[in-house]
Amino acid sequence: MAQSVRADSQSLKDEQVQTGRPGSQNGQSVPSQMVNGNGRSKEDSSKAWKEEITRMLGGKEGNWSDSQWLQAQIDKRCVDNMRMLVVDSVNTAKAGHPGLPLGMAEVGYVLWRHTMKYNPKNPNWFNRDRFVLSAGHGCLLQYITLHLSGYDSVQIEDLKQLCQIGSRTPGHPENVTTDGIEVTTGPLGQGVANAVGLALAEKHLAARFNKDDAVIVDHRTFCIMGDGCAMEGIANEAASLAGNMKLNKLTVIYDDNHNTIDGPTSLTFSEDVGKRFEALGWNRIVIDDIYHDISSFKNAVLTEAAKSDKPTFIQVKSRIGRESVKEDTAKAHHGTFDEEDVKHMHKNLHWEDREPFYVIPQVYEEFTNHANHGVAEEEEWNKSLEDYSRKYPNEAREFKQLISGQLPDNWEEALPQFSADEKIDATRGYSEKCLNAVSKVLPGLIGGSADLASSNKVYMSDFPDFSPDTPEGRNVRYGIREHAMAGISNGIALHNSGLIPIAATFLIFSDYMKNAMRLSALSEAGVIYILTHDSIGLGEDGPTHQPVEQLVGLRAIPGMYVLRPADANEVVGAYKVAISRRHEPTVLSLSRQKVSANIAGSSPEGVLKGGYVVSDNTDSNGLPELILIGTGTELALCEAAAENLRHDGKKVRVVSLVCWQLFDQQSEEYREKILPSKVEKRISVEAGSPLGWREYVGSKGKVLAVYTFGCSGAYTEVFKKYGFTAENITKVAQELLAEA
Amino acid sequence: MAQSVRADSQSLKDEQVQTGRPGSQNGQSVPSQMVNGNGRSKEDSSKAWKEEITRMLGGKEGNWSDSQWLQAQIDKRCVDNMRMLVVDSVNTAKAGHPGLPLGMAEVGYVLWRHTMKYNPKNPNWFNRDRFVLSAGHGCLLQYITLHLSGYDSVQIEDLKQLCQIGSRTPGHPENVTTDGIEVTTGPLGQGVANAVGLALAEKHLAARFNKDDAVIVDHRTFCIMGDGCAMEGIANEAASLAGNMKLNKLTVIYDDNHNTIDGPTSLTFSEDVGKRFEALGWNRIVIDDIYHDISSFKNAVLTEAAKSDKPTFIQVKSRIGRESVKEDTAKAHHGTFDEEDVKHMHKNLHWEDREPFYVIPQVYEEFTNHANHGVAEEEEWNKSLEDYSRKYPNEAREFKQLISGQLPDNWEEALPQFSADEKIDATRGYSEKCLNAVSKVLPGLIGGSADLASSNKVYMSDFPDFSPDTPEGRNVRYGIREHAMAGISNGIALHNSGLIPIAATFLIFSDYMKNAMRLSALSEAGVIYILTHDSIGLGEDGPTHQPVEQLVGLRAIPGMYVLRPADANEVVGAYKVAISRRHEPTVLSLSRQKVSANIAGSSPEGVLKGGYVVSDNTDSNGLPELILIGTGTELALCEAAAENLRHDGKKVRVVSLVCWQLFDQQSEEYREKILPSKVEKRISVEAGSPLGWREYVGSKGKVLAVYTFGCSGAYTEVFKKYGFTAENITKVAQELLAEA
Repeated sequence: MAQSVRADSQSLKDEQVQTGRPGSQNGQSVPSQMVNGNGRSKEDSSKAWKEEITRMLGGKEGNWSDSQWLQAQIDKRCVDNMRMLVVDSVNTAKAGHPGLPLGMAEVGYVLWRHTMKYNPKNPNWFNRDRFVLSAGHGCLLQYITLHLSGYDSVQIEDLKQLCQIGSRTPGHPENVTTDGIEVTTGPLGQGVANAVGLALAEKHLAARFNKDDAVIVDHRTFCIMGDGCAMEGIANEAASLAGNMKLNKLTVIYDDNHNTIDGPTSLTFSEDVGKRFEALGWNRIVIDDIYHDISSFKNAVLTEAAKSDKPTFIQVKSRIGRESVKEDTAKAHHGTFDEEDVKHMHKNLHWEDREPFYVIPQVYEEFTNHANHGVAEEEEWNKSLEDYSRKYPNEAREFKQLISGQLPDNWEEALPQFSADEKIDATRGYSEKCLNAVSKVLPGLIGGSADLASSNKVYMSDFPDFSPDTPEGRNVRYGIREHAMAGISNGIALHNSGLIPIAATFLIFSDYMKNAMRLSALSEAGVIYILTHDSIGLGEDGPTHQPVEQLVGLRAIPGMYVLRPADANEVVGAYKVAISRRHEPTVLSLSRQKVSANIAGSSPEGVLKGGYVVSDNTDSNGLPELILIGTGTELALCEAAAENLRHDGKKVRVVSLVCWQLFDQQSEEYREKILPSKVEKRISVEAGSPLGWREYVGSKGKVLAVYTFGCSGAYTEVFKKYGFTAENITKVAQELLAEA
Repeated sequence: MAQSVRADSQSLKDEQVQTGRPGSQNGQSVPSQMVNGNGRSKEDSSKAWKEEITRMLGGKEGNWSDSQWLQAQIDKRCVDNMRMLVVDSVNTAKAGHPGLPLGMAEVGYVLWRHTMKYNPKNPNWFNRDRFVLSAGHGCLLQYITLHLSGYDSVQIEDLKQLCQIGSRTPGHPENVTTDGIEVTTGPLGQGVANAVGLALAEKHLAARFNKDDAVIVDHRTFCIMGDGCAMEGIANEAASLAGNMKLNKLTVIYDDNHNTIDGPTSLTFSEDVGKRFEALGWNRIVIDDIYHDISSFKNAVLTEAAKSDKPTFIQVKSRIGRESVKEDTAKAHHGTFDEEDVKHMHKNLHWEDREPFYVIPQVYEEFTNHANHGVAEEEEWNKSLEDYSRKYPNEAREFKQLISGQLPDNWEEALPQFSADEKIDATRGYSEKCLNAVSKVLPGLIGGSADLASSNKVYMSDFPDFSPDTPEGRNVRYGIREHAMAGISNGIALHNSGLIPIAATFLIFSDYMKNAMRLSALSEAGVIYILTHDSIGLGEDGPTHQPVEQLVGLRAIPGMYVLRPADANEVVGAYKVAISRRHEPTVLSLSRQKVSANIAGSSPEGVLKGGYVVSDNTDSNGLPELILIGTGTELALCEAAAENLRHDGKKVRVVSLVCWQLFDQQSEEYREKILPSKVEKRISVEAGSPLGWREYVGSKGKVLAVYTFGCSGAYTEVFKKYGFTAENITKVAQELLAEA
């Protein structure tokens, strides 16, 4: 009874060279001359394969001289081994989703064994091919291919820890947990958008940096999507944009297995998905029977898709839970296998008497042989980059700066300084000036709006559009596809090539992309969301367009900073914060209506603390009688109300609480200095939901907020109706001051 | 110089019979024998039309004996008049979106003048055709057709008040503001889903109630969508489901004008939309030039679409801003027209010397002639219903009950009573029992899950699936299309036929349908959202699937009730609340993990107050030292912790705050009774975002919450890691009690 475990790189032992995959020390490359992964001679390998295949064939004689036949048998046996690892993993975890990894094992195998370019010892090599498992519940497929390919991040021990707390193999793939995982997936459809973002980033950088005689950006992006992804709107949005943009190095592989959790897709999903992708401008390939003819898929992915001038959609007719008793039924989607089923599979696959998690040594060899090509290609690429650096030193400098992940020195100096006589504008207008200023010094800035460039004021006017003809352009026109915009932005950010994605729409439509925004935070994607028309102050468009509860909803996302600057000074500060956050997402919440460029006392530096005192007429040792806390356009109203109250002899402080999350992170001492606990008379003024404000105004304070939906009308009238005037704030304050 | 204003029904004057549309008293039907709207003879009308058409032709002689030619001229002139009303309205409002109403005037005209069945004096007549303007910014088209058709809700005065505060003509159509508007639209794509919901409701009711010899449910649903809707994912999801369900009485008309706000669609949207809809299972018709050939569209909508066995997609190649200087450019999308442009249009249309808002009297006649058919059809329908009631008294009783909008008497008695020995289950499990119990007595219940029926436990097992073959079924399988599910549910609710839509998925995926859920609240659609797997307690699936900030995000939606029941008793109470809310949406937040069926002290009645005392060991006159406030599965943990503390001699109250919104609506006295302000030591325990809890625990209380994302692992371990154990709550409480 043989038992093979993937060697832990920390405790590699000699005997494992016999029985397991040869390990390599963490971070070290496998020497490319080690053609066979475990250092055995070709002859030894051939002999071992012959034995294994004879076993697989139940002792029948093979056609050993036919190399094509032999390769097919090797392919088949590798896939068998992957399937058994799937079963062993879910049964050990007593959790997980075997359906996809069993059904799509051939696809995973062909990608990692025959197709993709990667170096398992340097998972972050810039020019690697990218893979996204949009149907993230099938993560075992990815964990197993990463393991077999030689990534240190997934050892056999990790497969045994599937879904266990603290493991590197959580229930859905997480880029922040497991090296080799590019993006975090699970919520369906998101991965398709991420893949579009990765492919867009590649196309963009290739157009900017490649030269006829020096190519340094050149990789493909692969994605597996399931029926769920096919149904989700975000995937259609993203695919439509990919078709428009002719992202020809993107290949999406559709697990067309005709089953979802609730049963056969015929219940609810009878459309012609392939025809839809054709309509979206994609090249469509159908693989009718990958199980019996793996070469058709190899050909599709290696040749047909590779030469397409459009993105390619490969429709793989598969069977969920293949080789198990649950094959081709919805039951295979998730859950474990009982003893009988495992026995049955062992018999069918001639796998008897093997321990769980057994890996045939030659299977490791197969993957390593391929991975070694990637190792060699990285070496080649390093040389190309040196060559490029000599020929094109300026471009090389910019390129290296980008992929270093560091911002250029002193970039902040490019931000405008707004003087007191700056023309009055909306905060979206001040943002436009900041964006265009920094776009000149930040070569990574790329992005745009969901068809509201002119309204969001998000357009970098020194640069062309990103389009099929000008992929070097940095303004991406996302169309009216908010959800895809955010998902694509995550992909751009997680290309990890120094690109800084900007995604803009109205604040209200953050509702359309909420899950993708959440995934920005969860997957540490430094997307900058510019969300304008940020309150009922947008006026005429009415309640369907007037955000109320959006601010609190976004503030509640762990790790998402929401900044609502009050004037031009604060917009500058907000840009400093947002651009510095390269591994966390940020929302800039901006107004449609105009506000003074400089509220006396506002400052970019104040913004960096999240909250600060804008004005106060209290003696330096004393405490104010009242604190008005405002954000965004309402800060100016607080100031005006404070002036009224001070005129009546009151001691009033005005605090700008431009970013709750930043303020919460300041020291207790600082927070106490700004909002002294002894001053219990406080009023918050924000034209949004009241939820969350109690934290800052305390039990005795008042929350001036929007408690219902907005309404259509001129902005000044709407603001008046809802109490957002200096007069009303003054009145509320007088009442509060009069209380005991 | 003639001036014509639509008569206000309150102040109808004789001279208006000469110059304007004949009014009719509010709520009264126009007698069907009044073939010409203003009571003039046919001869007078013909003469008037001859004069008007001669003017339109610039004095050229017409082909008066050719009735087809004459109808075409009349059609043209009606459309001219509609266009001028568009221009006058936006110019008066100095706001609004003229692009679509100018470009699609012919479509609006054909629908209201030649096609749709409606009674303007009874906008809520059950068997009317339904219309949805998914491209809601084009609301002027709808306001103008409503006006010309004779709806009291839109007078000329209302057109003059476009986008003004308090008007009946807000910036986007609102069903709660304007009679004749079926659903609230504006956020793009939503209307397509709403229309699918309306058509689904019709198909369902028709299958349930129509008999071979008695048809009482029989109407069509029309929808206009724009490029924005075509791009939004929700529309694709909804259209895919409509194709699958063969909703053949649904006709979607696509304003294919090749322009969006940011410019030509070629920038970002080059797909073949019509082919996509074909792939989705729709019948596709292309209208190449509606402007010059209105009859092709008439034929498509009146004949081809009417006889299709699939939903029909009519692709109307139009020009945005038609007849204006901005025609065929993105500039026409929104904004006003300057004097020169108006003069130019007047000249082109031979409209000189007419005042703003002029309506040719015969135009009113045309619309009224058609509307009168609807009036007659309602009379016919009333007779059919009487006939039906005689032949099928039982079905008639159920049908009338449904369309009354009232719930059946004593329906609550069907809810189960859970005894103390009820088998332990998740709250989703108790919900399943409640749902199946009430489904027997509530004939309106219809809906299902986004491919998670077995996980959400949302399936009414006494009833079949809604499918093309069994449209009488009440279980709708939405597929993995959360956003469309919510939008369709809104349509079902706003069909206003007593149907009670249920929409189920994991709580985390409320993020996918957030905007549609918001629109449930805004448009007063009584959708019941059953959202399970409602915390990090779902375990293995990990942070992508573990909701954290979703509860607070949903609680922040004005008018949305979020109930998070703690056990079987509270689930019963939550059903009482949700089902009673026929014009407001409700979220039931339910667990995956199991909890005791009966926490001592919990009750359905308590739920109706939103918050109540579950247990307290304080003397009846005294106050507790500490209040533990829990929701959902964490209430049982609070109870266990309270027991620990009481064992140590502490006086501890446990409060279930199952629904914040309901609790907030109780009297101050009641709230003070439950959470006495003197008891400042309070701890909230909820496995979700801390945001908002300060309101209930006060400045000195503690918020035990989830401050980061969750993680993959067994639920008990995850809960332990984040502090959700009786032991940790006890410890936190002891610390708080020890504070001064």
